[in-house]
Amino acid sequence: MKPQDIEKRSFEIITAELGERTFPAGIAEVVKRVIHTTADFDYADSLAFSPDVIEKAKAALAAGATVVTDTNMALSGVSKATLAKLGGKAVCLMADEQVASEAKARGVTRAVVSMEHAAKFEGPLLFAIGNAPTALIRLHELIEEGIVAPALVIGVPVGFVNVVEAKELFIGGDTPYIIARGRKGGSNVAASIVNALLYQMVHREGF
Amino acid sequence: MKPQDIEKRSFEIITAELGERTFPAGIAEVVKRVIHTTADFDYADSLAFSPDVIEKAKAALAAGATVVTDTNMALSGVSKATLAKLGGKAVCLMADEQVASEAKARGVTRAVVSMEHAAKFEGPLLFAIGNAPTALIRLHELIEEGIVAPALVIGVPVGFVNVVEAKELFIGGDTPYIIARGRKGGSNVAASIVNALLYQMVHREGF
Repeated sequence: MKPQDIEKRSFEIITAELGERTFPAGIAEVVKRVIHTTADFDYADSLAFSPDVIEKAKAALAAGATVVTDTNMALSGVSKATLAKLGGKAVCLMADEQVASEAKARGVTRAVVSMEHAAKFEGPLLFAIGNAPTALIRLHELIEEGIVAPALVIGVPVGFVNVVEAKELFIGGDTPYIIARGRKGGSNVAASIVNALLYQMVHREGF
Repeated sequence: MKPQDIEKRSFEIITAELGERTFPAGIAEVVKRVIHTTADFDYADSLAFSPDVIEKAKAALAAGATVVTDTNMALSGVSKATLAKLGGKAVCLMADEQVASEAKARGVTRAVVSMEHAAKFEGPLLFAIGNAPTALIRLHELIEEGIVAPALVIGVPVGFVNVVEAKELFIGGDTPYIIARGRKGGSNVAASIVNALLYQMVHREGF
């Protein structure tokens, strides 16, 4: 079986096992791709979507958005070739030396400083946060302060400390969001949500 | 809270929630780090370890092993700085142009070809497979054919097609293994298992 046939069959299995649980177009692709990435059907319940978020995210991506991740692992998982076809790019500042030295000097996490630097980028911004709750908390502050207005916040950090609370900050708010409520998430989940949006917009070779 | 304090507290929560479920030293670190990476306690049941696998893996890492991954995402997640302190390195051949062209010419997956090329590497080899069941199947064939004798196979691909079967090939076999039985796993899980071994051997700054 070719990779594209395996993926097709996998999505058929996921759809079958979801049974009577159906999702609106656009959202269904996100939910199923996250399950495809994790084999964890809990995401059918935990993923929360703000109103019209898929349309808003697609509009931003069509306009050549910058995707900002909080780990190099998420950056690695985002289909940058697909993103480039739309004129977009993906960036992670966690290994940036200036970010590291500033974080050390101020006694904050690199995730915090990387959000502050990324907030200054031009053009539509999509934040894909799969690891650091501090990134999500600082991002929420920057939004409240009017410093940044993200086109989308993908808030899916995984963990046991401060994670649930950081994600809840966005629920019901004005910023378009896709949030994995609860403890679960990860860099792989963050990347798969970005890809689920991209693959609705751009034909993938062999697929 | 500093990242190292958050991690410490997270492991305390995981230990508490595991309750009476305890694991041998070495194995406990792997199980808990995978749960830390995924917030998924299913791994306490699904992870399978061959006899003395922790000791064997540590011996290989101490001898300067090469860690071979089947995705750049897993490569990105492995603590390469820690690995380098032991004289080891991590490699992923999935983006190698020669691998890509050979896979296309032969009509097989790049994962298959990347395993064949990696099998020729000198020194102790640790394979960390988080994505492609075809990588795991080809690796098992290469072992059977006497072409490679891995010091460790971390077999944790995630998915719905051929994944469970590919992982079961190794259970009870002679090659040292850490396998996540069932559908679950991923590049993040593969990387976290490598790191769980490394962090038992090398002091991490700030931890």
